[in-house]
Amino acid sequence: MLVLSNADVERLLPMSDCIAALEPMYADYANDKALLSPRVDNMAPTTHPGAYYAFKHMGGTWPARGVQALRINSDILKHPVIAGKPRREKQPLAGGRWVGLVLLFSTETGALQAIFPDGVMQRLRVGSANGIAMKHLARRDCRTLALIGSGWQAGAQLMAALSVRAFKEVRVFSPRAATRDAFIGEARSRHPGVDILAAGSAQACVAGADAIMAATSSMVRVLEPAWLKPGIHVSCIKSQEVDGEVLDGCDRVFVHTARQAKQMDNVLPGTPNVSEEHKRGWWNDPARPAASYPDLGQLVAGSAPGRARDDEITCFANNVGMGLQFAAAGALVLERAKASGVGHELPDDWFSEDVHP
Amino acid sequence: MLVLSNADVERLLPMSDCIAALEPMYADYANDKALLSPRVDNMAPTTHPGAYYAFKHMGGTWPARGVQALRINSDILKHPVIAGKPRREKQPLAGGRWVGLVLLFSTETGALQAIFPDGVMQRLRVGSANGIAMKHLARRDCRTLALIGSGWQAGAQLMAALSVRAFKEVRVFSPRAATRDAFIGEARSRHPGVDILAAGSAQACVAGADAIMAATSSMVRVLEPAWLKPGIHVSCIKSQEVDGEVLDGCDRVFVHTARQAKQMDNVLPGTPNVSEEHKRGWWNDPARPAASYPDLGQLVAGSAPGRARDDEITCFANNVGMGLQFAAAGALVLERAKASGVGHELPDDWFSEDVHP
Repeated sequence: MLVLSNADVERLLPMSDCIAALEPMYADYANDKALLSPRVDNMAPTTHPGAYYAFKHMGGTWPARGVQALRINSDILKHPVIAGKPRREKQPLAGGRWVGLVLLFSTETGALQAIFPDGVMQRLRVGSANGIAMKHLARRDCRTLALIGSGWQAGAQLMAALSVRAFKEVRVFSPRAATRDAFIGEARSRHPGVDILAAGSAQACVAGADAIMAATSSMVRVLEPAWLKPGIHVSCIKSQEVDGEVLDGCDRVFVHTARQAKQMDNVLPGTPNVSEEHKRGWWNDPARPAASYPDLGQLVAGSAPGRARDDEITCFANNVGMGLQFAAAGALVLERAKASGVGHELPDDWFSEDVHP
Repeated sequence: MLVLSNADVERLLPMSDCIAALEPMYADYANDKALLSPRVDNMAPTTHPGAYYAFKHMGGTWPARGVQALRINSDILKHPVIAGKPRREKQPLAGGRWVGLVLLFSTETGALQAIFPDGVMQRLRVGSANGIAMKHLARRDCRTLALIGSGWQAGAQLMAALSVRAFKEVRVFSPRAATRDAFIGEARSRHPGVDILAAGSAQACVAGADAIMAATSSMVRVLEPAWLKPGIHVSCIKSQEVDGEVLDGCDRVFVHTARQAKQMDNVLPGTPNVSEEHKRGWWNDPARPAASYPDLGQLVAGSAPGRARDDEITCFANNVGMGLQFAAAGALVLERAKASGVGHELPDDWFSEDVHP
């Protein structure tokens, strides 16, 4: 049993390889050859005032790679009001750190094969999903990218976009100018040869862009219907960043998956500040449910057609995560870690037993 | 982060302490102060002919003890036909071993605190549930116990029964005489002072018994309606061991919990031999659903009354496992392991992170 670190995952899993690892999983998912475990969230009170405990897990079984993944998050959450809006804030109370883990099992032997933190892979898998969608939906001659957001997820969106299209210019907008400028500094050194520019407004950011990627933690619409010019491709990493009006303005919309509930909530009475916002939105609108759109798997498998003409407006609404992403990316990381002797090896007997119920 | 073994769990958790640890959890569960994560099963094909992969997990949040548990089983299963009946057989393919794990997290810090195999605790928690039910339902003057079954679970049922009632005589029946006799030999050395006898038939086993415990892996009824004499207490560890006729013959029936689905199945097309039998039975009968009976939590909390008269026939139908049992038993094991320096201590930083999604 191998214990890996975020640094190991980052070293072993370049974005382009993560995209290549996930793509066949999506096709298998569309063809009923890969299986999600649903996302389940338990929420309960703690002794910390105003905070609650959230235990989340999601998983996936991918027989083609012989892998079962389970991703677990164990967080103490607060919803402080910042600039008038409630924000969902994970408290680093585990010795000043956060707790998110991925467990990988073999579907051929049952064995637990690896445990590693989820943070780096979480970011890569979101980037990959949107990168795969862009690869199949955006015009091939895209040159200008508008990036809304300059946080950790925005960096992965940029990596993914540059893995699938030869963008020459990237414009970054964020209401937080200092964060944006730090982001641009890092992005420039990571992506030499691409013009990475700060945009002073969202409008300046998107003007003339061939693609717009939203990568924020916003609970309200970030993409504006007025930005939907013929030929553009748009995407988000969170359902709330788009709304019905945006989706209705696109010629072709794909979701990540509509085959699982967004999440299954188990909330203990007395749990403070739990947000119900994820339950309200276009994805639950009977007039326009997520299930009315084809999913990324169908796009990759070719069972739902992608862009047909250069002037179409295409959209990837990454509505919910899929535990299968951790199975696909995890299988590759595990293979590489074993091949290169990376990680802490622990005795397999600690994680198996000679009795069974 | 502490890695414990089955031997550690066995040493740290005597049956009577496990019963004492679980009882307040049931009361909290009844009073909406403890929360289940639902049981989810993913099933998918493997390359082993006739076998399938099964990934099962269940969990529970118990704020009073600051603990979140997740119990995971990762198995390759076959359904060989033995003596004319299909049996569900876990294949020990992880280096000749099976894979079942319990993970314990702190609801106060989020930290992963322990990992240990599930086998010993699985057995103790089933025994404890039936022991707690017997404590609250059986007559106080019970003297003769009939035990149907002589497998690993039967041993835990016996330990639990002897923890809550002063049985003088125990009769054991199993169609497998050699297994039964080995079981009796071990039980006698573990429980000196109790007459533990082999019964040649089920009828001889139950004749005049004050309580009957079924502890088999049978997929069909094991308890017979004719055995329900006034004043008796009966229990099972598996829904299929009783049926509607048995339940209708009892004055007072409790289930383990009716508040969660028996299990949530996700089955990939092409998965061989998956049994649907757990979906068919009294617990899904609209005329007599599990939800029409109060649960063990309500019995412990006092919100559903237990035995009122000596001549009542009481029944505990342990219809489904609860992940919360692992939280309650796990919290005690962890506390004792820490106090006594038991287990392999691993760096907490391996199981936490300095970034978060």
